[in-house]
Amino acid sequence: MTTTASVVGGTGFTGGELLRLLDGHPEFAVVQATSRSEANKTVGGVHPNLRHMNLRFSDPEDLDSVDVLFACTPHGVSMERIDRFRDAAGTVVDLSADFRLPAAEYYDDHYDGHDRPELLAEAEYALPELNRENLPGADLVAAGGCNATATIVGLLPLFGHDILSGGERIVVDVKVGSSEGGAGGGAAASHAERSGVVRPYAPTGHRHEAEIEAYLGTSVSFTVHAVDMIRGASATCHVFPDDPVSKGDMWGAYRGQYEDEPFVRMASGGGGVYRYPEPKAVAGSNVAEVGFEVDPPNERLVVFSAIDNMMKGSAGQAVHAANVALGFEETTGLAATGFHPIGSP
Amino acid sequence: MTTTASVVGGTGFTGGELLRLLDGHPEFAVVQATSRSEANKTVGGVHPNLRHMNLRFSDPEDLDSVDVLFACTPHGVSMERIDRFRDAAGTVVDLSADFRLPAAEYYDDHYDGHDRPELLAEAEYALPELNRENLPGADLVAAGGCNATATIVGLLPLFGHDILSGGERIVVDVKVGSSEGGAGGGAAASHAERSGVVRPYAPTGHRHEAEIEAYLGTSVSFTVHAVDMIRGASATCHVFPDDPVSKGDMWGAYRGQYEDEPFVRMASGGGGVYRYPEPKAVAGSNVAEVGFEVDPPNERLVVFSAIDNMMKGSAGQAVHAANVALGFEETTGLAATGFHPIGSP
Amino acid sequence: MTTTASVVGGTGFTGGELLRLLDGHPEFAVVQATSRSEANKTVGGVHPNLRHMNLRFSDPEDLDSVDVLFACTPHGVSMERIDRFRDAAGTVVDLSADFRLPAAEYYDDHYDGHDRPELLAEAEYALPELNRENLPGADLVAAGGCNATATIVGLLPLFGHDILSGGERIVVDVKVGSSEGGAGGGAAASHAERSGVVRPYAPTGHRHEAEIEAYLGTSVSFTVHAVDMIRGASATCHVFPDDPVSKGDMWGAYRGQYEDEPFVRMASGGGGVYRYPEPKAVAGSNVAEVGFEVDPPNERLVVFSAIDNMMKGSAGQAVHAANVALGFEETTGLAATGFHPIGSP
Amino acid sequence: MTTTASVVGGTGFTGGELLRLLDGHPEFAVVQATSRSEANKTVGGVHPNLRHMNLRFSDPEDLDSVDVLFACTPHGVSMERIDRFRDAAGTVVDLSADFRLPAAEYYDDHYDGHDRPELLAEAEYALPELNRENLPGADLVAAGGCNATATIVGLLPLFGHDILSGGERIVVDVKVGSSEGGAGGGAAASHAERSGVVRPYAPTGHRHEAEIEAYLGTSVSFTVHAVDMIRGASATCHVFPDDPVSKGDMWGAYRGQYEDEPFVRMASGGGGVYRYPEPKAVAGSNVAEVGFEVDPPNERLVVFSAIDNMMKGSAGQAVHAANVALGFEETTGLAATGFHPIGSP
Repeated sequence: MTTTASVVGGTGFTGGELLRLLDGHPEFAVVQATSRSEANKTVGGVHPNLRHMNLRFSDPEDLDSVDVLFACTPHGVSMERIDRFRDAAGTVVDLSADFRLPAAEYYDDHYDGHDRPELLAEAEYALPELNRENLPGADLVAAGGCNATATIVGLLPLFGHDILSGGERIVVDVKVGSSEGGAGGGAAASHAERSGVVRPYAPTGHRHEAEIEAYLGTSVSFTVHAVDMIRGASATCHVFPDDPVSKGDMWGAYRGQYEDEPFVRMASGGGGVYRYPEPKAVAGSNVAEVGFEVDPPNERLVVFSAIDNMMKGSAGQAVHAANVALGFEETTGLAATGFHPIGSP
Repeated sequence: MTTTASVVGGTGFTGGELLRLLDGHPEFAVVQATSRSEANKTVGGVHPNLRHMNLRFSDPEDLDSVDVLFACTPHGVSMERIDRFRDAAGTVVDLSADFRLPAAEYYDDHYDGHDRPELLAEAEYALPELNRENLPGADLVAAGGCNATATIVGLLPLFGHDILSGGERIVVDVKVGSSEGGAGGGAAASHAERSGVVRPYAPTGHRHEAEIEAYLGTSVSFTVHAVDMIRGASATCHVFPDDPVSKGDMWGAYRGQYEDEPFVRMASGGGGVYRYPEPKAVAGSNVAEVGFEVDPPNERLVVFSAIDNMMKGSAGQAVHAANVALGFEETTGLAATGFHPIGSP
Repeated sequence: MTTTASVVGGTGFTGGELLRLLDGHPEFAVVQATSRSEANKTVGGVHPNLRHMNLRFSDPEDLDSVDVLFACTPHGVSMERIDRFRDAAGTVVDLSADFRLPAAEYYDDHYDGHDRPELLAEAEYALPELNRENLPGADLVAAGGCNATATIVGLLPLFGHDILSGGERIVVDVKVGSSEGGAGGGAAASHAERSGVVRPYAPTGHRHEAEIEAYLGTSVSFTVHAVDMIRGASATCHVFPDDPVSKGDMWGAYRGQYEDEPFVRMASGGGGVYRYPEPKAVAGSNVAEVGFEVDPPNERLVVFSAIDNMMKGSAGQAVHAANVALGFEETTGLAATGFHPIGSP
Repeated sequence: MTTTASVVGGTGFTGGELLRLLDGHPEFAVVQATSRSEANKTVGGVHPNLRHMNLRFSDPEDLDSVDVLFACTPHGVSMERIDRFRDAAGTVVDLSADFRLPAAEYYDDHYDGHDRPELLAEAEYALPELNRENLPGADLVAAGGCNATATIVGLLPLFGHDILSGGERIVVDVKVGSSEGGAGGGAAASHAERSGVVRPYAPTGHRHEAEIEAYLGTSVSFTVHAVDMIRGASATCHVFPDDPVSKGDMWGAYRGQYEDEPFVRMASGGGGVYRYPEPKAVAGSNVAEVGFEVDPPNERLVVFSAIDNMMKGSAGQAVHAANVALGFEETTGLAATGFHPIGSP
């Protein structure tokens, strides 16, 4: 018996990636994709990779009843329309920021407040590596932010394995691709202005800093740079533990945390061209690569993590969480590997 | 019952792409990948996307017996080792140029001759759109060149549909990505020298010109340019028919040729950003996009085609042909769609 | 005595490039740069390379009196405001399409007609290689289109040197960078959609086809592709002469045409990485590179030309023409060479 | 009276950039460029932007007597050949690492020792912003490393202006282009492997860490990432002062340090697309951009600096220092501004 799914906000990059994943997922059948601006147009006219799909965008005011609704609307829309989403679907997976922070004060401090703060306690954070136990049966799931996801996956093993206890100095320097900005455009996003950049972006006070702190329980000094790739987010975490940490300690922590995770892969100092995590090595896949080095002279740990922001950083994470929530095998529809060679991709 | 497969020459880009495809193919089991230079090293050490594979390169002198052997060796190796390949495998699929041209004189004119010309009549050209009927049961299959494939797929409908009869003027201007040059490197292939180029490459006398002429039966004026992408080949064919051709004639020819083809998709003048064939729209997939415009003032037809050179232009074509040769459903293991947005990929 | 200059429409890419050139030009003093949208803002706030300039954009309604006014406004504006431009300046150099075609019927056929057709006979085409003799003293100069410039510079030697007489088949396949589209933006121009493309653009009926025909006196089959670079235009011309042409004939024609030209350089089949014209090799400079091969089996000549579309293809050409018009040494302010290595640049 | 100059090691990227600068410098005349591998070949055959130069590479064993010799040889060569260089030239400017560190122990710790440690005290560090007072008349000048230069220029104002006193925690996260790796090549440098990367490179123990510490007098936690640009180095410095620092304090320090520097430009939080330092905004120029933000919640200062690694990070810095050493106006031959728009360049 097929599980029906809809994508609300299907013209954006995240919506398109979800349509691609759901279209190739053996358990889901996409019955609706909505778009205000492109209503009645074919999905393939916006997402050329989906030209084979026999589906047209429909008006978001008329939501079909489905088993799962994926909301890919801009921040602020889900909190306004959440009752209608929940009326239409038994399970709502939201890919915006609207339900991903655990308490209203985060929204007061970093966004324009929250309309439905009482729902925040109901929402489950989608990242299975952090919150798998609470996902089965969840009916409101909130995908994490891409930069936050890259950072959390990188740093998570340091907590709970006797390496960090919270409060230590952590600098997180993130490099992201242009798909993170969405399909909109504007002068700063144009090819001529955006190609070849190393562009500081929200050098302080980035909203994902709050998300990381909310889920790791410690503050981080967070800065994001736009670089010349399309998909991909890479977090380099400079960590200063109170006591010396050996490479063996680190391997113990990371293996302990991740050895059974289907979508986390270690890449830490081997030979060849790809010795540490790189967005290129995971682009197109739901894999997060994680690696590290220890730097005794500076009493520092350097942790690298890399994801495809469209996959592990949004649509892939959402489908992964939906698989867990609905009781499917976790990797269903997400088993595709990356490519070599590949661009960004 | 699983079909066993081996990849001879597994460290190059084509070999890696084949390993990726075979690893995800439900009918094939990869039992061997050979490499002289990387023997005993893991496949994942060379191809980071395949870090999950539990496979090490082995010496090419010791070939396992398999059902299908895919040869990804440099031009000239297959013709020298073909007997050993055929001893090891019931079916040999060669991805080099060694068996793709139909007669010895092509090798005399465009390569350094051929060691085993008597085998050329046995070899079947891998492109199913051109040669599907001869592939079932074939035991020596030769994948086409990537530029030739893009061109042939673009121009094929013009023959046999009363548009061209052979002998008309055709200019083919191809743009290709850097993966075409293989994994080697060298100064011209370095990032600093190769990024951002529009670089004429073999402006006259390109070897694929002969391949196109061999299979289309007419000569083409062929020029290749390197451009800044990694995967992808795009052919723009400027065609001058003897008599006026309407858009309706063209649609008739292309629909007639391709409406049942699983891996050819029309993209011809619709709306949106992606109106004509683009390598970006097919990257990571085995799809060839084809489209056209008519230009009455210049008595010209302009035909565009775009492929991922690693897929439809080599490894994907090889697996497609192997599927047909061995009686599997054609699209098995090749159903992945492309991405949006995406780089090159 | 300094020559005063103004730039009308200074926020676009062409306007910014002109400001850069004029700022470094020993004969010109920039006294005004206008912008409707950015009035009162600093030039450096829009063009970060010009942060050192002590200049703010002013309202285009208040034009200062200057010796030379460079108009970088969108197509259609110059023909509307030309009287005001001429009132303000003794010499007007227009970088839009408004005065570059020699007769009104071109505007009727390829644009929305022309408001001031009587001025077309007064306007001088800016390309010195084609029209140097008419530039001295000209008071209305119209810069050529970038694709047309690349093509004309490539093909010009074939006429007047007994190689072509007009009427022969010529296919021109152009590859251009994203700066050609201007500073605007929009979804198709966004980094995510525009990176890594080989995108057919105006495959037939491109407006520059008319410009080429107007100045070369023969028709060309013209197709443009967007590729992944920012600056640069490359034209590959596939030419079919009536009679055989030798390499020596070609060298004779090209040397004859260009040996004394300060901004045309031959690059034709030497060794090294850069054997033919490439946009990379001229980026940032006013140089056009030209080269060729002969292809006897196809009775074809292949001509390559490459320019920086912001320089030789617009702002550099405009300054070059202004130098000639005003009696300065031709290369004044334009002597900068390109870079190696370099991106697009 | 012209000052004669030679470039030893003229085929590499740094050597080519020096030749470009010297060729356009009104005070210098290039009389020799050496190359072992390309002896007797034209400079333009290797550096296509220099096709106009009438110069052939000569054998490095036969050094002409010149006023200034610029050594662009691989690390280790200059210390071996320094006596011959000094015999040939009154002033030697070395662009390798051989004389840039102030004491032998740095070479023992980070390189393979030093052959001529007694000369280290004679060598002057080329960066005028740090060492201007010692450059006039210097006869052995050593250009800084590109990553070190970007970092030192960024952090320098924090010392001596009551913000840092040494010993505070500083994390430096650098992003660099592919030209930094030189003209060689190899698999990791190939376009297919190097495009679109965010690749950790020497995540700990990078040699430039020692150089920074030598000249700033404090340790830094230093990590370099390769990103997809050709020219450019960007340093993001996360600084943790002992006491709160205000934005006003920072402006005071940076203005105090740099207001009279011809090649340092502030870019700190203004409007528009380019709000902080970016390699794109300085590419092709000798300008270093510097900017900052304060982050009170994390008790952090974030300092950004961006340079063109071929210019301010090597050849431009070398010419700048030579200008000072020889008594020319500092900006002679280095006044070219950058470009907009531009790639990497």
